[in-house]
Amino acid sequence: MIGRLVVVGLGLIGGSFAKGLRESGLCREVVGVDLDPLSRELAVELGVVDRCEADLAAACQGADVIQLAVPILAMEKMLGLLADMDLGHAILTDVGSAKGNVVRAAGQAFGRMPARFVPGHPIAGSEQSGVQASNSALFRRHKVILTPLAETDPSALATVDALWRALGADVEHMQVERHDEVLAATSHLPHLLAFGLVDSLAKRNENLEIFRYAAGGFRDFTRIAGSDPVMWHDIFLANRDAVLRALDSFRGDLDVLRDAVDAGDGPQLLEVFQRAQAAREHFGRILARRARKGTLNANDDHKEARS
Amino acid sequence: MIGRLVVVGLGLIGGSFAKGLRESGLCREVVGVDLDPLSRELAVELGVVDRCEADLAAACQGADVIQLAVPILAMEKMLGLLADMDLGHAILTDVGSAKGNVVRAAGQAFGRMPARFVPGHPIAGSEQSGVQASNSALFRRHKVILTPLAETDPSALATVDALWRALGADVEHMQVERHDEVLAATSHLPHLLAFGLVDSLAKRNENLEIFRYAAGGFRDFTRIAGSDPVMWHDIFLANRDAVLRALDSFRGDLDVLRDAVDAGDGPQLLEVFQRAQAAREHFGRILARRARKGTLNANDDHKEARS
Repeated sequence: MIGRLVVVGLGLIGGSFAKGLRESGLCREVVGVDLDPLSRELAVELGVVDRCEADLAAACQGADVIQLAVPILAMEKMLGLLADMDLGHAILTDVGSAKGNVVRAAGQAFGRMPARFVPGHPIAGSEQSGVQASNSALFRRHKVILTPLAETDPSALATVDALWRALGADVEHMQVERHDEVLAATSHLPHLLAFGLVDSLAKRNENLEIFRYAAGGFRDFTRIAGSDPVMWHDIFLANRDAVLRALDSFRGDLDVLRDAVDAGDGPQLLEVFQRAQAAREHFGRILARRARKGTLNANDDHKEARS
Repeated sequence: MIGRLVVVGLGLIGGSFAKGLRESGLCREVVGVDLDPLSRELAVELGVVDRCEADLAAACQGADVIQLAVPILAMEKMLGLLADMDLGHAILTDVGSAKGNVVRAAGQAFGRMPARFVPGHPIAGSEQSGVQASNSALFRRHKVILTPLAETDPSALATVDALWRALGADVEHMQVERHDEVLAATSHLPHLLAFGLVDSLAKRNENLEIFRYAAGGFRDFTRIAGSDPVMWHDIFLANRDAVLRALDSFRGDLDVLRDAVDAGDGPQLLEVFQRAQAAREHFGRILARRARKGTLNANDDHKEARS
């Protein structure tokens, strides 16, 4: 049981975190902070929070846990503001899709790594956005990765861990670097390839005429190119180094595959495709197992935009 | 109304073509040819064809239309066998996913481009395969591209066109080169990237552990990496030149995108992502329009493997 939870940023992720914990009864009070007056009003109306504040300092007064759910490029500014306040014993955590840059920003803002800062990232999202899309079940059976540092207070880590578990999330702890590498490979790189391919075709084909011949395979492959351009631009700036490493590894492998096509090297192509098919089937089994674990959530088919 | 239709190769595509036309009543007789005795037996049992022959020459005796629905790398051999027969007035057509190599093979086999050969490609498929998956509605509202040559007899073209339309397909005529370029861009390149990315991650991560962190976006992006490795190996060998051109264009654009990430060039990234998002939304509207045109087919969500 904690006293006051403050959620800064009432978008889909912040709103869902607030609403779920409010419904859990684990927090005496859930306070929302957002720059947008309409979001603050809706958050109260929809039962996402108990009350809202426009002012960060006023909201954080007496907070036990402060969850930063602002866009990843706004984290630095937010951490700078928090570093100037007396946060008492408050635990600080965040939901940024890249962890290295948030951790660096925290160290710089506070002059050292704050012991009560627990970096985190829920691998969940939805095609919907905004506080009105808040869903207390959004994180159920989804992975949440926490990346504690050597300086992190174990009791702060345990508290943040418990809050996510109360929402039904599958929490794992991981090194910052490993998190950024894993997300670069499984989420950021696929988004870059999908955005890149769609733009590459669009600019070479007048009136987008080529898309008339695309079918189901292309639809699935490029679905993530429909994601929010601003959010993804933020993520690529935030996770630059890990994305470049993942991209360069892939480009090396793609060059080898290109040479195999060029040389008409059937056995080499078959080997790559067979290994890929086997790995994709393994991944399909992971997804099926995860779906079996809980009630099937029809909405899961659309949870991707932010992952 | 035509007399005898012969379908060579009773897989999903050949079987669905045969079954649909048999049900349409447009052909007096539908004859199947397949090397596999079980497929021949099932084809008759399931009402896919009126009768089967193991021997190509026996089946083609008195044929009005011969549809070649064998794997693309088997087309050359099949065309060679047909060139040695007296086909009378029979129209020859095929369903190969690349057209340049089939057209070249036909020219070589017959010593010149046969006037009654109509190259074709239905952009349809399913995750299921084999004659037991034959579905007379498989091509409904799907594009079928015919690529007639200067030598092609207009009445042969009109007959093949009418057969596909009888199955509810949306038939278009296109140059061979344009077909191969369009398919390389919208189907073959995405498959190469999906197979390539999954294999690249799989071989760098022990026990495929990284896939545990992948979410919905990755699932959709890599779905086509679950496609049949042998069929796709055939397609890359058959459409090599067009695939290399599409891949090299994309690699050039990807290099520019890489530089933008490296330089932290936010405006450039945002521009690409916004253009891609707009193009993807345009494509989404095409798909929605296509779905509205006819009865919604629940199965359409899985039509991809062969497209």
